[in-house]
Amino acid sequence: MTQTRGALLRSYVSGNWHTPPGEGRPLHDAVTGDEVARISSEGIDFGAALTYGRTVGGPALRELTFHQRAALLKALGGHLREHRDELYAVSAQTGAILGDSKFDVDGGIGVLLAYASLAKRELPNDTVYVDGAVTPLGRAGTFLGQHVCSPLHGVAVQVNAFNFPVWGPLEKLAPAFLAGVPSLIKPASPTAFLTARLVELIVGSGLLPEGSLQFVAGGLGDTFDHLTGQDLVSFTGSAATAQTLRAHPAIVRNAVRFSAEADSLNFSALGPDATPGTEEFDLFVKGLTTEMTVKAGQKCTAIRRAFVPEQHVDAVVEAASARLAKVTVGDPATAGMGALASLEQREEVRRSVKALTDAGRIVFGDPDSVEVTGADADRGAFVSPLLLVGDPERAEPHEVEAFGPVSTILPYTSTAQLIDYAARGQGSLAGSVVTGDTAFAREVVLGVAPWHGRILVLNAKDAKESTGHGSPMPQLVHGGPGRAGGGEEMGGIRGVLHHMQRTAIQGDPDTLSAITGRWVTGSERHETDVHPFRKHLEELRPGDTLVAGPRVVTQEDVEHFAEFTGDTFYAHMDAEAAAANPLFGERVAHGYLIVSFAAGLFVDPAPGPVLANFGVDDLRFLTPVKFGDELTVTLTCKQLTPRESAGYGEVRWDADVTRQDGESVARYDVLTLVAKKESAQ
Amino acid sequence: MTQTRGALLRSYVSGNWHTPPGEGRPLHDAVTGDEVARISSEGIDFGAALTYGRTVGGPALRELTFHQRAALLKALGGHLREHRDELYAVSAQTGAILGDSKFDVDGGIGVLLAYASLAKRELPNDTVYVDGAVTPLGRAGTFLGQHVCSPLHGVAVQVNAFNFPVWGPLEKLAPAFLAGVPSLIKPASPTAFLTARLVELIVGSGLLPEGSLQFVAGGLGDTFDHLTGQDLVSFTGSAATAQTLRAHPAIVRNAVRFSAEADSLNFSALGPDATPGTEEFDLFVKGLTTEMTVKAGQKCTAIRRAFVPEQHVDAVVEAASARLAKVTVGDPATAGMGALASLEQREEVRRSVKALTDAGRIVFGDPDSVEVTGADADRGAFVSPLLLVGDPERAEPHEVEAFGPVSTILPYTSTAQLIDYAARGQGSLAGSVVTGDTAFAREVVLGVAPWHGRILVLNAKDAKESTGHGSPMPQLVHGGPGRAGGGEEMGGIRGVLHHMQRTAIQGDPDTLSAITGRWVTGSERHETDVHPFRKHLEELRPGDTLVAGPRVVTQEDVEHFAEFTGDTFYAHMDAEAAAANPLFGERVAHGYLIVSFAAGLFVDPAPGPVLANFGVDDLRFLTPVKFGDELTVTLTCKQLTPRESAGYGEVRWDADVTRQDGESVARYDVLTLVAKKESAQ
Repeated sequence: MTQTRGALLRSYVSGNWHTPPGEGRPLHDAVTGDEVARISSEGIDFGAALTYGRTVGGPALRELTFHQRAALLKALGGHLREHRDELYAVSAQTGAILGDSKFDVDGGIGVLLAYASLAKRELPNDTVYVDGAVTPLGRAGTFLGQHVCSPLHGVAVQVNAFNFPVWGPLEKLAPAFLAGVPSLIKPASPTAFLTARLVELIVGSGLLPEGSLQFVAGGLGDTFDHLTGQDLVSFTGSAATAQTLRAHPAIVRNAVRFSAEADSLNFSALGPDATPGTEEFDLFVKGLTTEMTVKAGQKCTAIRRAFVPEQHVDAVVEAASARLAKVTVGDPATAGMGALASLEQREEVRRSVKALTDAGRIVFGDPDSVEVTGADADRGAFVSPLLLVGDPERAEPHEVEAFGPVSTILPYTSTAQLIDYAARGQGSLAGSVVTGDTAFAREVVLGVAPWHGRILVLNAKDAKESTGHGSPMPQLVHGGPGRAGGGEEMGGIRGVLHHMQRTAIQGDPDTLSAITGRWVTGSERHETDVHPFRKHLEELRPGDTLVAGPRVVTQEDVEHFAEFTGDTFYAHMDAEAAAANPLFGERVAHGYLIVSFAAGLFVDPAPGPVLANFGVDDLRFLTPVKFGDELTVTLTCKQLTPRESAGYGEVRWDADVTRQDGESVARYDVLTLVAKKESAQ
Repeated sequence: MTQTRGALLRSYVSGNWHTPPGEGRPLHDAVTGDEVARISSEGIDFGAALTYGRTVGGPALRELTFHQRAALLKALGGHLREHRDELYAVSAQTGAILGDSKFDVDGGIGVLLAYASLAKRELPNDTVYVDGAVTPLGRAGTFLGQHVCSPLHGVAVQVNAFNFPVWGPLEKLAPAFLAGVPSLIKPASPTAFLTARLVELIVGSGLLPEGSLQFVAGGLGDTFDHLTGQDLVSFTGSAATAQTLRAHPAIVRNAVRFSAEADSLNFSALGPDATPGTEEFDLFVKGLTTEMTVKAGQKCTAIRRAFVPEQHVDAVVEAASARLAKVTVGDPATAGMGALASLEQREEVRRSVKALTDAGRIVFGDPDSVEVTGADADRGAFVSPLLLVGDPERAEPHEVEAFGPVSTILPYTSTAQLIDYAARGQGSLAGSVVTGDTAFAREVVLGVAPWHGRILVLNAKDAKESTGHGSPMPQLVHGGPGRAGGGEEMGGIRGVLHHMQRTAIQGDPDTLSAITGRWVTGSERHETDVHPFRKHLEELRPGDTLVAGPRVVTQEDVEHFAEFTGDTFYAHMDAEAAAANPLFGERVAHGYLIVSFAAGLFVDPAPGPVLANFGVDDLRFLTPVKFGDELTVTLTCKQLTPRESAGYGEVRWDADVTRQDGESVARYDVLTLVAKKESAQ
């Protein structure tokens, strides 16, 4: 056998590719055992890299609006998609079959695209993120509170696990990037050669601002000593490493944000309704065996504990064994399950299985022997799927994680017992309940929720669209309490905000408007000669105002509207019944009549930049309108959201409909689409 | 001089008052030096206390809805208000003047009442908190995601500082209690006798469920060793103690949530526009001297660094010195400023001032001498207000906190320099900018926000209603990054959620509806013989549905509506112009006409339980309605919010207006008030 030396992986720090001096440490193909690369971070000035991120990457990112950052993520996703095949090829050397590689690579690209799309919908096209509503802090309205979120001025140090060399880094990069915080990516060594290829593609694309992404192949040296309260650490990996890093003196001293996502003993429970022969029974067995074999079970979300009603344990063992027996192990190009990431991992799995057999027995597979197809069983990190039946009253099944294709079936006899057992995992990333019984689902889900970051309820209704027990979704939080590390990643915009500082701003309305770039109630209004509906997006400013009216609401108007629409509710039509209503006391106008008249007052009818009124938010009828009341509407431009790639944008208007005495009768936001001037030319 | 021995403070743990064996450690009156109490936590089984909280307090709290918990907080606030004078009297022994005592006592009661009110407005009257919107996870709508928050099943261990013996514990209790998490309160020893009296009043009221509040006078013993991932720690105090606790092995091992609020070097900046003679100049000086003397400057939010345009330093020194000269120091009953909490604190302040004078000079006061009125200067912990002028390029002013009536004036010459200096505090709880210039305010606030938890902009417009630089507000976050501890408390409902686990639930619509208690799009609808508007609150169920229609929308309807309301927008009235609109292509009906017709279809006109339609949320016009289209409305009961103390509640309905082909043309929530049956009897 010839042994070739792998190439030294390069790091990308302080704006340059860094090739370490020295020989580095060898990394091996998980299947052939051949050396595929060498790794070392020798010679890197880690303090300088952090400074570079803070002084070059941060400012460059913060100049962009959320939507501009989103557009770059989208472009990056497209670029990586074009290079998927290259990544699949490298991924095979980590022991992954093609399905596993797609899970990792396509999953990672999916996170970029999902975040790009979420950002456009849920973040402003601005650099300031306004969090929650304006809060009055005094009666006169001159003193208000408003929370804003600002990007931290540090670096997001992202320590990744070996099992998802593409998805892992991208799942951490996307929210940091959107927040405006530069990333420093550190992959786990065993599969770092795949992440290195990913980073080459990213840097090569030239899409991301310089300094927004750095990459360290190898150890992080003294990086942690340089961390400040503006930096943050996102860690995925073993609980032991998480503990060491969390207690690092600089992290403790500077209250550095530290988010960990660690090993956990995730459960899946079969509902008592899901007896053998039901679709749910089959879904449970399929979910269990799939989670065991995808990525050879090397998923921090994989099912380690399978809770099964006592009377169905034998049936589950039989059905699961039958499925597992069909899974071939070997060459990733052809087999149903590939190799573990390294021979060390295989030893670790064997040790853990040994501990589990103290509290249970193996019912499928042999930890020391597996039939391997198309590969050398002696050189690759192959192991058989291993199914156990354990004693749920013992500690081991709830505490020992075998990070491979290993699950333990645990019998239960009541819902309360099931909830108790699930909680013995002391915090997990994911749980699942397979049941068609919604009451059982409610009881179990609410019972175990405090210990879980994500819970899937699987049944015949959602199985077709379900993404499965093991898949974190960009829209949903990923992370769990306690043993799972106590972190929270993704969760849509929540993951972006985890990279930002929330600050309560107190001030007068004009100052808050200036700071947030949004018109705030009580701040100055600009009434101009030009109707604001005649202004293009670029010409509008928050505070631009139209006052229109008054219009008297008569009894005839109300009766006419009632007859025309069919809304003859007694409060409008029946004086005696209206008088008995505790809120009105007499006949009142329809709420929908008020907003219709208001539109009649503020709309400018001729064709112009306003393309459509596409919605209304937060409409509240504050004071009843009685016959003879005069309505005036004040329409004020509140917020502008230009679209990056369209000839228009969204304009949110504050509508305040007042009575002759100045009292507000209705208050709401009117949402319009307004054309850009450029698009008209 | 006679020295009487103070009474031993009792703890309240595991459902009993605990009097420690032994003599305890003496606590002294800050003014007279007399012993006022003794403290010891000897004999407490801390592990048992945590278990008691988890097994008795937690379950009792979790049985209550958010609104029921809020009602208890409100009642507790009322009870304490009745006993305010007793608390003021004890407070004087901590060195506080009456104004300081009110700040502490009334402030604490205010937090309880504010949270009670916030909870009723912003939390459901339910035990499940639904976080964010339902997220579709597939195209067919059979698989959805929804985040819910559940109370942690542990204990909130609350370690308080000595400076706010009433406000501090209540500020931590209120959000924990609302979340459904029991509290274990540990006061700082020097002023623990006041917190002990507070707890006696609370326990004596009998208002709170047993186990929801425990109190340890004295050290916490081995409490931390017993912490699990379901417990959490909220700490206020010194940075050094925060670091020790944060690195505790059990906290690190179990990823225990740890929130710290520590010393910080807060700033206040005078804007260049606020020249001597302006109202803002006076506001700045007044704010500075007030923050120095309230609570004798023992506030973690007090102004330590006062940034002043270089050319106005002398004027500020002169004006501030004049104000400080009028502040009498001595007997809390009569003086303008009382004593520090202890003689040890005075020594600590003197040491810090010594360090500050290495980088500056004292321009008002003498650390070693102060004229004391009405009290014994040798026995009380009195110190003079001390104003310094420092060198902002030196490290000390940005790093050394003298926790007493001490501030340092630091000159600046440009906005960029001011922002740089402010950030050198490396994380603060509060900052303030005194300016009438909104552009300057925006630049400074956004520049320094990443280092701050709260920033006040003070000027002539908001001064009258402003609550000042130093006052945390229940509605706003309290806490700051880095040196300030990295924690976040209060902030309205945010503070409640910090005590809960957020869990992503994935499932089919029916299961999500069952879990959340809210009707979710796609889940089963129940059409009944009875119109849902004829059902009282107790009779309605999420999913109760009315389908009404169809009604054809004719050209005559649209033209009539346009004429009647005055809304003659071209998209409704001008065929040629409408055809040119990129969204419509032809004349379309008014959005307000659609919702008016929909109401005409779904309203049941006769008097009944539905009292009013008080609003509409999230209205979106999804598809244009063209002449001849037939509208059908499906109205589905979505969420019920009974009010605890009223004869009615809020009912949120999903309204879906569809076209003849089933396409939704408008979607929104209709908000109604519906009477309870009991109220009708």
